[in-house]
Amino acid sequence: MKNYIKADEWNIIEEGFDPDLNKISESIFSIGNGHMGQRANFEEAYSGETLQGNYVAGVYYPDKTRVGWWKNGYPEYFAKVLNAANWIGIDISIGDEKLDLHSCKVTDFKRVLNMREGYLQRSFIAELPSGKKLAINAKRFCSIVDEEAGAIQYAITPLNFDGALSVNAYIDGDIANQDSNYDEKFWEQVNNDSEGADAYLTLITKKTAFVVCTGSRVAIFQDGKPVDASYIPVSKTKYIATGFTVKAKQGQETIIYKYAVNVTSQNYNADELTQVCKTVIDRVAAKGFEQMLAEQAEAWKAKWNESDILIEGDVAAQQGIRFNIFQLCQTYSGKDDRLNIGPKGFTGEKYGGSTYWDTEAYCVPFYLATAPQQVAKNLLIYRYRQLDKAIENATKLGFNNGAALYPMVTMNGEECHNEWEITFEEIHRNGAIAYAIFNYVRYTGDKDYLNEYGLEVLVGIARFWSQRVNWSGARNKFVMLGITGPNEYENNINNNWYTSTLACWCMDYAAEVVKQVKSSDPEKYHQLVEKLDFNELEETSFWNHISENMYFPKDEKLDIFLQQDGFLDKEIIPVKDLDPKDRPLNQKWSWDRILRSCYIKQADVLQGIYFFMDKYDTATIQRNYNFYEPITVHESSLSPCVHAIIAAKIGLEEDAYKFYLRTSRLDLDDYNNDTEDGLHITSMAGTWMSVVEGFAGMHVKDDRLKFSPFLPAQWKGYSFNITFRGILINIKVDVEGIHLSNNSASDITIDVFDEPHTIKAGTNVFVAHRVRV
Amino acid sequence: MKNYIKADEWNIIEEGFDPDLNKISESIFSIGNGHMGQRANFEEAYSGETLQGNYVAGVYYPDKTRVGWWKNGYPEYFAKVLNAANWIGIDISIGDEKLDLHSCKVTDFKRVLNMREGYLQRSFIAELPSGKKLAINAKRFCSIVDEEAGAIQYAITPLNFDGALSVNAYIDGDIANQDSNYDEKFWEQVNNDSEGADAYLTLITKKTAFVVCTGSRVAIFQDGKPVDASYIPVSKTKYIATGFTVKAKQGQETIIYKYAVNVTSQNYNADELTQVCKTVIDRVAAKGFEQMLAEQAEAWKAKWNESDILIEGDVAAQQGIRFNIFQLCQTYSGKDDRLNIGPKGFTGEKYGGSTYWDTEAYCVPFYLATAPQQVAKNLLIYRYRQLDKAIENATKLGFNNGAALYPMVTMNGEECHNEWEITFEEIHRNGAIAYAIFNYVRYTGDKDYLNEYGLEVLVGIARFWSQRVNWSGARNKFVMLGITGPNEYENNINNNWYTSTLACWCMDYAAEVVKQVKSSDPEKYHQLVEKLDFNELEETSFWNHISENMYFPKDEKLDIFLQQDGFLDKEIIPVKDLDPKDRPLNQKWSWDRILRSCYIKQADVLQGIYFFMDKYDTATIQRNYNFYEPITVHESSLSPCVHAIIAAKIGLEEDAYKFYLRTSRLDLDDYNNDTEDGLHITSMAGTWMSVVEGFAGMHVKDDRLKFSPFLPAQWKGYSFNITFRGILINIKVDVEGIHLSNNSASDITIDVFDEPHTIKAGTNVFVAHRVRV
Repeated sequence: MKNYIKADEWNIIEEGFDPDLNKISESIFSIGNGHMGQRANFEEAYSGETLQGNYVAGVYYPDKTRVGWWKNGYPEYFAKVLNAANWIGIDISIGDEKLDLHSCKVTDFKRVLNMREGYLQRSFIAELPSGKKLAINAKRFCSIVDEEAGAIQYAITPLNFDGALSVNAYIDGDIANQDSNYDEKFWEQVNNDSEGADAYLTLITKKTAFVVCTGSRVAIFQDGKPVDASYIPVSKTKYIATGFTVKAKQGQETIIYKYAVNVTSQNYNADELTQVCKTVIDRVAAKGFEQMLAEQAEAWKAKWNESDILIEGDVAAQQGIRFNIFQLCQTYSGKDDRLNIGPKGFTGEKYGGSTYWDTEAYCVPFYLATAPQQVAKNLLIYRYRQLDKAIENATKLGFNNGAALYPMVTMNGEECHNEWEITFEEIHRNGAIAYAIFNYVRYTGDKDYLNEYGLEVLVGIARFWSQRVNWSGARNKFVMLGITGPNEYENNINNNWYTSTLACWCMDYAAEVVKQVKSSDPEKYHQLVEKLDFNELEETSFWNHISENMYFPKDEKLDIFLQQDGFLDKEIIPVKDLDPKDRPLNQKWSWDRILRSCYIKQADVLQGIYFFMDKYDTATIQRNYNFYEPITVHESSLSPCVHAIIAAKIGLEEDAYKFYLRTSRLDLDDYNNDTEDGLHITSMAGTWMSVVEGFAGMHVKDDRLKFSPFLPAQWKGYSFNITFRGILINIKVDVEGIHLSNNSASDITIDVFDEPHTIKAGTNVFVAHRVRV
Repeated sequence: MKNYIKADEWNIIEEGFDPDLNKISESIFSIGNGHMGQRANFEEAYSGETLQGNYVAGVYYPDKTRVGWWKNGYPEYFAKVLNAANWIGIDISIGDEKLDLHSCKVTDFKRVLNMREGYLQRSFIAELPSGKKLAINAKRFCSIVDEEAGAIQYAITPLNFDGALSVNAYIDGDIANQDSNYDEKFWEQVNNDSEGADAYLTLITKKTAFVVCTGSRVAIFQDGKPVDASYIPVSKTKYIATGFTVKAKQGQETIIYKYAVNVTSQNYNADELTQVCKTVIDRVAAKGFEQMLAEQAEAWKAKWNESDILIEGDVAAQQGIRFNIFQLCQTYSGKDDRLNIGPKGFTGEKYGGSTYWDTEAYCVPFYLATAPQQVAKNLLIYRYRQLDKAIENATKLGFNNGAALYPMVTMNGEECHNEWEITFEEIHRNGAIAYAIFNYVRYTGDKDYLNEYGLEVLVGIARFWSQRVNWSGARNKFVMLGITGPNEYENNINNNWYTSTLACWCMDYAAEVVKQVKSSDPEKYHQLVEKLDFNELEETSFWNHISENMYFPKDEKLDIFLQQDGFLDKEIIPVKDLDPKDRPLNQKWSWDRILRSCYIKQADVLQGIYFFMDKYDTATIQRNYNFYEPITVHESSLSPCVHAIIAAKIGLEEDAYKFYLRTSRLDLDDYNNDTEDGLHITSMAGTWMSVVEGFAGMHVKDDRLKFSPFLPAQWKGYSFNITFRGILINIKVDVEGIHLSNNSASDITIDVFDEPHTIKAGTNVFVAHRVRV
């Protein structure tokens, strides 16, 4: 746990340069725009510890799988997010000295991530070994208006000398993925080209043949006026640069603008990319840096208007929640249904792949409430498009008749993961995908989605579950064997309550949606029956039959759901009695010891209760919470948010707050000592959930938005914006009570503490606090 | 399954050269002598498919572990058997043509492994592309008399030309392990040297710094007389050769003898190795090839006298069983307690490591009965010497107080394996090590072993089990969670009946041995108490307490032991109802499907019944056999032998015979399509067991040897030699009955069908057949 980020409501601030923290800061100060993104590497050369990272959404490489012991059914390839051409490079030399913070004396270093307006700024004074001093002020962003473009403003001022600045503004495509399994480089050059202030580098990925053209244009200003420089191209394989020299006097600021663009063969013909790239550069350079930045600030203002959470009386918490929202918005814009939300976004390479069940279970609720409906819909359509691959995946594993098993990790629909206990057994992901469809329809009311996309996916998933269970003659029930639940500190268990619960729900829901589609659009339904070779009567009645005759482990004495068969064989010792030197268990204990122990990595039974909260009375939730919470170690970043929501639900406000704290500043404070690898993007949506679904108790039922908020004792107030069925609502909770504003043109009725309140368009409603439970 | 090996009682014969079978034959025709060994590669160059393999016992390399996903507790290194310098090389050129069977027309090819006398012979006629024809007759062996030496007789006859034969007799140390994890070579050169007919190459392994000097001397004969040749040394890094040219006339045989020696720093000072090597070469070359071979035949005669099994009326079965015994004797001579029995012996690299529980569970019984007592004792002492490492291993996994967990796979006592479900969970190996001590003492009566070595190991193992169980409040019993049993088609199961049974037995046996040692040698006992910091009263009573209060899964209705908790949740469909195209499951089904299925890779409950057969009545054995046998797929080479023994025990003679067949020609017929990787050495001991403990029903109880034999209907008779407490006995079973001969100077009493028969020294006893069960 580190504590070097300065508290501020709208900015992430680092003061002073500490090379030991550099890789952490590179992650934290990352910028992106849904189409591309990058770590907060330096523009100028840096020979110290760094993880140079530039990423272009959807561009992946099927790296050959590496395992110690092969298991049948493993994927041959692991599709990885690709580290792509570095377009920020601006080498600065004075005489034969190169500006490199690793060999300079650095003072007045400050790095700021301006979240309100969406840019990264860095300023410092560097003293070169010769004693020459330079002041640098660099600003850059990935535009959320012109998503293919980024821009840099790099200002250099000699402080104690006059002299020539030699500059080399480059694009470097000779990049290796840090996580390459066989130290292979994944990019090859198509061509490179430079003309005047422009440089273009076109690369192609091996195997997948994604073509990306990265282009840049430089412009130089002194004293507010453009400087004409003589540009010298520098060309190497997978590298192109624009070199020039400008004279600068002591105290005179030279500003270098670098406009950069990434265009890819996903969106254009591969052979037109350089031309397209130039056109985009022409467009953004014509705007100029200042206008681009102004548009950026305007666009971010709109984003914040949809998604902000305001916390009063706790700057660290405020900074934390905004950081989470900011990074989520930077990672996924929802404009392209081929994209998804990587666990590290554009901030690192770890975990490869881009898509985990995190998307459906944690991110969908955030985007549903804070972005246009199409955004969450595109996340759903992404899975719809990969249904064929999910069926292929299930077929490989021995299932048939169109049963679909979505992968644990994927980029293109194919399974990437290769721990058997996860790849083959952590199949609850299939349920989360069905649940997201339900959740989307519940929130948006968009039932047409089921006709057009949803039903196909639900049938594939239900078919999978119906084949994955088996009849146990000994129990006279259906059972589900060989499971890893969300709690990955158990492997290959039988009758995981969460997975079995979710599976039965999936089958029932699929059967229900079958009826809905059949009655709402008989023609479409008929087409689907043909397409899916669907035997309605036989299949849906078998699904319901399984669901009615499923075995669920429970303990009668404790009156709780059992995480799995035999869970009470374990020694139950609460986490608080563990020796602190044994934590985190995943670093201190051998794997078998973890597996045998009672400790839970991540909410498992409670995850199920969270999904289907309406089904359980408060006493049931309390009993299960009281049993499982004390033995949960939360060593997954996805765990505390669920506990926060459930604690809030049963009135344990202190607990809820404690869990919120754990999640909101995870990366800012490098809580798990791994921020240098990149940020925990998907768990950031969980942070949002703990406030909105936890503290504010937001819930949707029967087409109605519901709240039952409380105010954590530590705060003066909090408020947030959400959009429900086209209506932008602000909910503010403070010591007085709950203030709801309807900032739209339509009226809305909202339940607060289960009582309906109609809020007319443009008006407010106030509701007093109520003691919950 | 292949069928190209000619049936013969004493020889393994291949006729005709088929390059597609070459790697299989290279395995099958392997030769070794306990100190070193090699695959049946060709002396002359061969550019076709081959796995060149030369191995020196005990020389290993800690190759860096490779896994896809790291789990805490994994070993950093995986100690591997090293492919070592190739000393058989004899390149032959005629003009500019090289003799290479891959580019010649080959006729009259015959490869023979003479098991009676212990040598490999190969003859063929090769027609070079130019049309020149050569007849080759090559014989070689690894001497079991001079264990550091091997010898080759390589005879060349030009059939249709006169000409000069250019010969290059080389030692090549530029060898890579096929299974190197990072394509690294493990050997470096210390020096190479040649003088006249001698060549010496000294290599050192990286990291482990084993130094091996390989030397050779050539001698040339024509017309029965030595030929003086001018020797030209050829020296390269990690390579040394003796080159020479001899003229040969059409029809004239030129014989090249090559004596080769491997000496290692395990036995001599590293800096004296070349000198030692030369001394050994001097000694064996002075004997000459023919005398060495005569001594080899004599020594093998003695080995066969101790260990042979004679089968009448079934040549294929006779060849199979002798092949198994021959390979076991080639692999382990028992002279060096630092060595063990690798799963592939000297026939390949697969599975790395040298020591598995196979040694204790399968090989010890073979060596106990067929070799001097010291041989099995040395296998036990090997584990004694590695006790510290086993304690260290357990400590790493969180155990304490001198608890010992022996590794699943090892070379030097450190764990090599890195599948968590095996490394951490397949801990029954610890029990097999204790059982081997019990078995050794039971067979030999050598109770002193317990005082000197056994008790320490037993205490470490008992301590481990006592910490590995936990108290289940819900069951009011001790349980053992997170286990993989011998049936590796189940992972991370709870309460594996076999492991729990073995664990309790270990604790009881350790407590009993404590008492024995205490009363037989109080002084030694006192020393051990100090050394082990042993609290007799507390520890042994806790062991007994666990054993008395252990939970064992069973099914009351079927009245069987349950392999594990929840086994009857599975769908029980007998193997015979599986679609043959699904077999073998480990190649056709995904891992999760195998895990969820009822199918058993290898005897599990039945393995436990085999170990403790005396404890169970026939009806109990029958019920368990009848339940488990039909769902066992025997996809481990170690499985059928146990089923053979149990089937024999309960009178299912046909079943016993069927299982015997499955194991005895596994490699000769390439049953599992993997013989090219090397032979299944350890399962060969299981083949021996199925005859001796199965068909003949050999058993030792209360210091008495017992038999209850039957004659498989397919055979006319079988007989075998065993040594029991210094007395060499021959048991012959034929249609008449059972003939026992005592070929020693002492009398012995043996139970046949539970009735005692005293056989005076040098006499025979006959017992009539009896229907069993």
